Amino acid sequence: MTSSSIVEMLAGLKAGTVTSAQLVQAALEKARRSATELNAFATIDEDAICSATESDQRYAKGAARELEGIPIAVKDVIDTADIETRYGSAAYIGNLPKADARVVRHLRKAGAVIIGKTTTHEFAWGVTTSSDTFGSTRHPQDPKRIPGGSSGGSAVAVAYGVVPASIGTDTGGSVRIPAALCGVIGLKPTYGALPTEGVFPLAPTLDHVGLICGNAEDLTIFARALGIKPQLHVSGRDAKVKGTIGILSVPSDVPVDRDIARDLSTFTEALRRNHRVVEVNVRVDEAYSIFASLVLAEGGMTHFSRNSSQLISESYGRETAARLERARMLSIDDFARAQEARQRFAKKMALLFEQVDLLILPTCPCPAPLIGANDVQIGAWRGDIRKALMTYTAPFNLVGYPAATLPLPRSADALPAGLQIVGRGGEDHEVVNAVVQFQKLALELKYGH
Amino acid sequence: MTSSSIVEMLAGLKAGTVTSAQLVQAALEKARRSATELNAFATIDEDAICSATESDQRYAKGAARELEGIPIAVKDVIDTADIETRYGSAAYIGNLPKADARVVRHLRKAGAVIIGKTTTHEFAWGVTTSSDTFGSTRHPQDPKRIPGGSSGGSAVAVAYGVVPASIGTDTGGSVRIPAALCGVIGLKPTYGALPTEGVFPLAPTLDHVGLICGNAEDLTIFARALGIKPQLHVSGRDAKVKGTIGILSVPSDVPVDRDIARDLSTFTEALRRNHRVVEVNVRVDEAYSIFASLVLAEGGMTHFSRNSSQLISESYGRETAARLERARMLSIDDFARAQEARQRFAKKMALLFEQVDLLILPTCPCPAPLIGANDVQIGAWRGDIRKALMTYTAPFNLVGYPAATLPLPRSADALPAGLQIVGRGGEDHEVVNAVVQFQKLALELKYGH
Repeated sequence: MTSSSIVEMLAGLKAGTVTSAQLVQAALEKARRSATELNAFATIDEDAICSATESDQRYAKGAARELEGIPIAVKDVIDTADIETRYGSAAYIGNLPKADARVVRHLRKAGAVIIGKTTTHEFAWGVTTSSDTFGSTRHPQDPKRIPGGSSGGSAVAVAYGVVPASIGTDTGGSVRIPAALCGVIGLKPTYGALPTEGVFPLAPTLDHVGLICGNAEDLTIFARALGIKPQLHVSGRDAKVKGTIGILSVPSDVPVDRDIARDLSTFTEALRRNHRVVEVNVRVDEAYSIFASLVLAEGGMTHFSRNSSQLISESYGRETAARLERARMLSIDDFARAQEARQRFAKKMALLFEQVDLLILPTCPCPAPLIGANDVQIGAWRGDIRKALMTYTAPFNLVGYPAATLPLPRSADALPAGLQIVGRGGEDHEVVNAVVQFQKLALELKYGH
Repeated sequence: MTSSSIVEMLAGLKAGTVTSAQLVQAALEKARRSATELNAFATIDEDAICSATESDQRYAKGAARELEGIPIAVKDVIDTADIETRYGSAAYIGNLPKADARVVRHLRKAGAVIIGKTTTHEFAWGVTTSSDTFGSTRHPQDPKRIPGGSSGGSAVAVAYGVVPASIGTDTGGSVRIPAALCGVIGLKPTYGALPTEGVFPLAPTLDHVGLICGNAEDLTIFARALGIKPQLHVSGRDAKVKGTIGILSVPSDVPVDRDIARDLSTFTEALRRNHRVVEVNVRVDEAYSIFASLVLAEGGMTHFSRNSSQLISESYGRETAARLERARMLSIDDFARAQEARQRFAKKMALLFEQVDLLILPTCPCPAPLIGANDVQIGAWRGDIRKALMTYTAPFNLVGYPAATLPLPRSADALPAGLQIVGRGGEDHEVVNAVVQFQKLALELKYGH
């Protein structure tokens, strides 16, 4: 029962060497352990065993589907019928949605077994997965640190080996950030590629549903099961990503930690041997402040259209309530101006992607910060943790391009960091393919040939 | 080819006395005539004949579906794959959506044949269905008058006999108002009952997709085909609506035209003979200003998230552009305060619906105004045409309750007016059933026993 990837699980299930009931039982046990040790689960669904039994019957009948019997965890901002869904907020304790979110319906139709709901920053509005009410979710390698957020529980569930794959949401980096900090793979597909129906909105023009997996082969299977069709490329030793890869070569408002910059540089130098790599001097860091205005305005509208000021002040966490107080002051004109700045930024990105087919940059500029830190120190720079963690991810929510994070090859004692791979809008398959190819290179670099 | 109801068409198609190709050919011809005479169509889809032919093949094979071969028209704010969808705006001339809106997919799955796109007020944001670019849609009984909006073309398409049924949208009354002014039936189901995916949003917390038909029996079939399940009640002479019917008995900010008030009173007196009718003194007119604030804020966010200020000022109609200038000044706090007022109003309505099962009131307080009028005179009151036409309809968008309009029995020379029937949230079938029962009473009153 040490198999932990979708690939291995499917092989075992098909061969009959393991049952879904066994896999799900093991996942539930490990979920309980991760809930105690790392606070990674909001709700564990013991009824998952019933679904697993149905999956085993399907294997017996030869009617198994793409993800038949695979245990999967789902972020708690995503509705699940009759399973408590509290959106990370005390205001929604006991909330039992009537229907599954559409992405959950897709998962169940593919045969996946939902074993529980993973912890999130309140309403997915933050990067730490800490909560006034529910406490802090902790990093699997160092419990004094955050796993990153807002899909922190979903990243921990994969990194800790509870499930081979999980679902999160990403409005400004919330899938990629915790995946990068926890050392797993995250994918934010093109805007709209996965349905947000039944997902608690944060900022509807920026919200994405995303995937977290332990390895690239699993991501391929998982993405395909959800309708994102990765192309099948040659997977031999000489396989490589086609086209031109761009690497950012300009300074940013938030500098990159020296060790991460060095490891990234080692990786890109290795890439150059076999790929066409160019340096691009386009700044992406202006996107963060545009993003922050948009999310404040849309977040305000989202919450004020659902709940009264009284409920917000009485039942929401202090951080969200304070944000909503700031949101009140914004005008629709502030929103309009941020949207115009976003459109100018989008034009710049479209021009950039006329010159490159993929863009590579760090996912986060630093490793996982300590729990409780509001500020982050990177070299001489010291600043807000949100700005630090989101400066390199939020730009691709503004433009809706697909973006993935892959663990950057690092020394064994270093905390994980992510290599971010961005593709053109709609070219999710190219990004998934790059994750597959770059994972090979990363493993070669880390463990030798 | 004079049959014009869904019931008659289905009977003819099943019996083989008419083909869908003939029905659709006739609908296309009449659509062209209505486009010329009344400006009711934005796009007529000549390819509809292909779908009709497929429907005829299904009849031949005995595989006909619920609306197989029935010609239907769809409001132009609703996406149709590869059919021009301009949302009533010069800014979207030539726009070809890649996919059908979900409600259009449902219609096609039920076998309906979409014959074209009906005219709308620009972005469904207004009550006249007049346009700087595309001209005014005209009332089928008096071309100097408006048909009402924003689903004016959809109401005209049914009233003029182009199609037996059409789809519109209703954010503050936009299905019920034109249906009432044109003398046909309109239904705004419970909020969320019909999917808005693929519909250009006006104000997402208020937007509804709605139905327009010529008679109650057709509404029953049409609603059922779209998944709104009307209960089957006894339809004999003694059939009646169960429970308590409330009638508003307090003055409103916008008075009701004397003749309409008299005809409504005649109808409710007739109702009393066979039903439990009570007077309720709850004011609904405070809802309009709440509605107006919400739609301005949400409309602003919708448009500013899609288009630049430059495109708005250059390509939008003057009325919409001016509204968006006003929207800029609103703060998110204005939106929040309007939402809180909405929640207080919703509590009042919930209390009211503890005492009554249905509520009856006028749909609009006056008959169709003249084209070009910005103000409306009703008795001693003179005021804004939007406020006049929406004061009695917008309250039920705020609370999301199902509401229908049925032609009020009037003398032959009078312009049409609507009797509005409102039910509890989720009880769409009760409202549809009331339309069926009240139509019988209305026909008795109009034509005698």
